[in-house]
Amino acid sequence: MSPAQPETDHPGKTIGIVGGGSIGIAFAVVFARAGHRVRLSEPDETRRGEVPAILAHKLGDLAAFNLIDEPASAIAARVEVVADMAEAVAGAIYVQECAPERLALKQAIFAELDRLASPAVVLASASSAITASAFARDLPGRDRILVVHPGNPPFLIPVAEMVPAPFTSGEAVAFARELLASAGMAPVLVNKEIEGFVFNRLQGALLREAYCLVRDGVASVEDVDRIVREGLGLRWSVIGPFETVDLNTQGGIASHAEKMGPAYARMGAERGQDDPWTPGLVEKVAAERRALLPLEGWAERVAWRDRRLMALIRHRKAEPAA
Amino acid sequence: MSPAQPETDHPGKTIGIVGGGSIGIAFAVVFARAGHRVRLSEPDETRRGEVPAILAHKLGDLAAFNLIDEPASAIAARVEVVADMAEAVAGAIYVQECAPERLALKQAIFAELDRLASPAVVLASASSAITASAFARDLPGRDRILVVHPGNPPFLIPVAEMVPAPFTSGEAVAFARELLASAGMAPVLVNKEIEGFVFNRLQGALLREAYCLVRDGVASVEDVDRIVREGLGLRWSVIGPFETVDLNTQGGIASHAEKMGPAYARMGAERGQDDPWTPGLVEKVAAERRALLPLEGWAERVAWRDRRLMALIRHRKAEPAA
Repeated sequence: MSPAQPETDHPGKTIGIVGGGSIGIAFAVVFARAGHRVRLSEPDETRRGEVPAILAHKLGDLAAFNLIDEPASAIAARVEVVADMAEAVAGAIYVQECAPERLALKQAIFAELDRLASPAVVLASASSAITASAFARDLPGRDRILVVHPGNPPFLIPVAEMVPAPFTSGEAVAFARELLASAGMAPVLVNKEIEGFVFNRLQGALLREAYCLVRDGVASVEDVDRIVREGLGLRWSVIGPFETVDLNTQGGIASHAEKMGPAYARMGAERGQDDPWTPGLVEKVAAERRALLPLEGWAERVAWRDRRLMALIRHRKAEPAA
Repeated sequence: MSPAQPETDHPGKTIGIVGGGSIGIAFAVVFARAGHRVRLSEPDETRRGEVPAILAHKLGDLAAFNLIDEPASAIAARVEVVADMAEAVAGAIYVQECAPERLALKQAIFAELDRLASPAVVLASASSAITASAFARDLPGRDRILVVHPGNPPFLIPVAEMVPAPFTSGEAVAFARELLASAGMAPVLVNKEIEGFVFNRLQGALLREAYCLVRDGVASVEDVDRIVREGLGLRWSVIGPFETVDLNTQGGIASHAEKMGPAYARMGAERGQDDPWTPGLVEKVAAERRALLPLEGWAERVAWRDRRLMALIRHRKAEPAA
């Protein structure tokens, strides 16, 4: 396979989207906002009729928040809603499938997409759980197929997990990465096809603990949410979980693991978990952090974190949740 | 015990702080910013000499971000740095202990505080792990003693976990809650003295999963952080983890648990966890969510979430992390 050059700094390519549900429409916003033409296919006639109004509403909201650089109508004009996948694929350099999360359905759609699209076209599924190995293993063009799993909604949550199968080519991954990044998303590579990928693994770990705390009468549902909104989530939106603890302890994450590791291991053991932070694992994590932030720059980064938090708090005060 | 009336809508009370480390200084900012007089004790002479400059620096940053309503110097003038705990306690209506996290030290400090402070004074520890039961069980005035564990730094991260021991009086908890809330914090009650309380339980669950993902080569340290910064954390800073999934699924969190519960249970089982989301537990969680948000208001709340995210994204674009 030899994918077309992305030329994503010269937008105006055609992107195919399969499925007019909320994720399909949100991806239409992402790509049309970036200057691409979008052909979105939706087999259900009633839903097809509803798509333009939903799209216009979302673009109107973005315009109200000054998050688009053109009139909403100009962006909407680049989105065409069609009935058949074949029309969505025609002329597309990339197809984003956003159908319901059912294995048999994904298999059928990708068999058809692989037949319809020329070998240079990258085909991506928005699946949040089903892997490309599960729905594309037996297809002749499987090397251009991968999962691109977005946050919800993708025009507001930048992250997109790219999950290639072992048979997906590096070129297809590189193509998707460049296209998504040039459309304002934050693509992240997931190296192995594990259930839940990274996003839902992390979300699930926190949710399972949250359910335990409510079950055991430690905190109410709303108090768990407040602790995240007014604490953990506030910080994690500025720096991720590894950088958070790296900056919380003098000496960085290696110090943190030494000081706090035993307590976290005990809390994990209460939930049946035995995944020790071995010296080798801590060394690997610390080495990555130190490559990103040498200890000489640690204090300055802590001050930077606090300034970022101050800016975020000022924003919250200026726009209270109401 | 009969605590003094907080009268927190008429600030100008005296707050004692024990310990001039970063958390002690940050709490001095919180209370002085709210109009209270603060007496902070620090036994080490060298450190004591450094406190005013550190405090002034933090207040200067807050002033630069328009996060204080008075000149930094006016707030700093309300903070007095003293050598002895007795001086910090004199005249205080509330004492916040912020010493290093060592059991024997906390025991010694609280024995002394309990002796020094009149029975109406509430005594709180910033401990992130050691419970009031562990350091105050045998003290005569233990009914006015509890843990108040802040985020870091508390003048930017609003959440404060209030963790009473079984012997702590409801009046002491109510007093701390009102004082903290009136100083701009978001106090949250933790009903049981479990290790890690709620904040670090949730943080630990996510961190342990993150370490597993790096260990298994699924994602890099930086990619885990990006997925949280650009995805999970962004959303969790607006709505907590329960509301997130409540709004992600038509029908709310009961639907979410039905659809996604089995997948999350499988991911948990891979980590040794067996804490099922039983029908009774899901019903309890869903009942709390439905009391906060009846399903009739669900679609409007989803639109609200998106507008909040839009405002947050606009803020990020206006102030890039640089």
